[in-house]
Amino acid sequence: MRGKFITVEGGEGVGKSSNLDAICERIREGGHDVLQTREPGGTPTAELIRRLLLEHGDEPLPAEAELLLFFAARSLHVSNVIRPSLEAGTWIVCDRFTDASLAYQGGGRGLDKAKIEMLAQWVHGDLRPDLTILLDAPLEVGRGRAARRGEADRMETERSEFHDRVRRSYLALAAAEPRRFAVVDASAPLDQVRAEVSLAVGRLMSEK
Amino acid sequence: MRGKFITVEGGEGVGKSSNLDAICERIREGGHDVLQTREPGGTPTAELIRRLLLEHGDEPLPAEAELLLFFAARSLHVSNVIRPSLEAGTWIVCDRFTDASLAYQGGGRGLDKAKIEMLAQWVHGDLRPDLTILLDAPLEVGRGRAARRGEADRMETERSEFHDRVRRSYLALAAAEPRRFAVVDASAPLDQVRAEVSLAVGRLMSEK
Repeated sequence: MRGKFITVEGGEGVGKSSNLDAICERIREGGHDVLQTREPGGTPTAELIRRLLLEHGDEPLPAEAELLLFFAARSLHVSNVIRPSLEAGTWIVCDRFTDASLAYQGGGRGLDKAKIEMLAQWVHGDLRPDLTILLDAPLEVGRGRAARRGEADRMETERSEFHDRVRRSYLALAAAEPRRFAVVDASAPLDQVRAEVSLAVGRLMSEK
Repeated sequence: MRGKFITVEGGEGVGKSSNLDAICERIREGGHDVLQTREPGGTPTAELIRRLLLEHGDEPLPAEAELLLFFAARSLHVSNVIRPSLEAGTWIVCDRFTDASLAYQGGGRGLDKAKIEMLAQWVHGDLRPDLTILLDAPLEVGRGRAARRGEADRMETERSEFHDRVRRSYLALAAAEPRRFAVVDASAPLDQVRAEVSLAVGRLMSEK
């Protein structure tokens, strides 16, 4: 049996990390092998690309270069980890995937979404997530949590209009594909968030 | 006065390095500032991408990932070095550019050339070389020279059919744009090669 491909998306500070762990635990309880991974990254070379994206010193990174690096990392991740794992029956739980490119580079930076879709088609073809959990929260919530964690990387110092465009892009993607997306209110109490996420994963596990 | 953009192309071992130096010298003698650079590379971040391309250990690099890394590096190079230098009046002499992507990834690896052209349009728009010197030699000549230099990186261990497709792709590009390309027989004696290259550069310098 082919594994299922679950992605977790959302803005900064919406609590992706703890939910990723909980999702993996839930899948293991269901009797499946599961691999937790992330983008950009997930393979040795893709992790080097991740470092380039986060640490390019003083050199400006053109939006096109950024997008191409994300998709180069994704190509490695899909070919060398995601596809072979799914074919071996392992479930994949991935912190971000192509929806993040559409929300951040498309919605956030204003790159042409048709081009991003074309790169997606090229790099992973008909491989799309079976379930995408979108952790959605008002900007104040996410930004407050990220600041408390003391994070200040490049993405997180972008201005709030950017994050607002990202959030609206994510919500538009979810509205366009309601069967694939489970939108979870990440500003709710943690127990409630966990329960909603667990419900969505349980639904996927019970599918034939 | 805007600088001119010269690229030098060709397979392995055709003598690009020594000709690059000679071209720069010729341009300096003509009274212009000149910057010699290379692809992939030419900026600090693009040079890190170059290292990824040449040294990715045991991890297979999908052809799409390779192409996207080349164009990510090119985007950095064009935005951060080539365009600003040309606008400041500096001439650019670049070891390889988009023609290499068309010849190696398109002709050599069989990737769709229309996609490569689309990436080129996206990353550098109407910026195209004013002159491209194609150092062309029968495969035996190039491979013999490369072997004598003791080089054995990934590109150069590809099989000879690959290099034959690359060579034919380069020649087809030159045939399609005879005004931009100067095709030089790199198997000729060094003095003759040098004279032909110098002639092509001199012609560009005398243009209004």
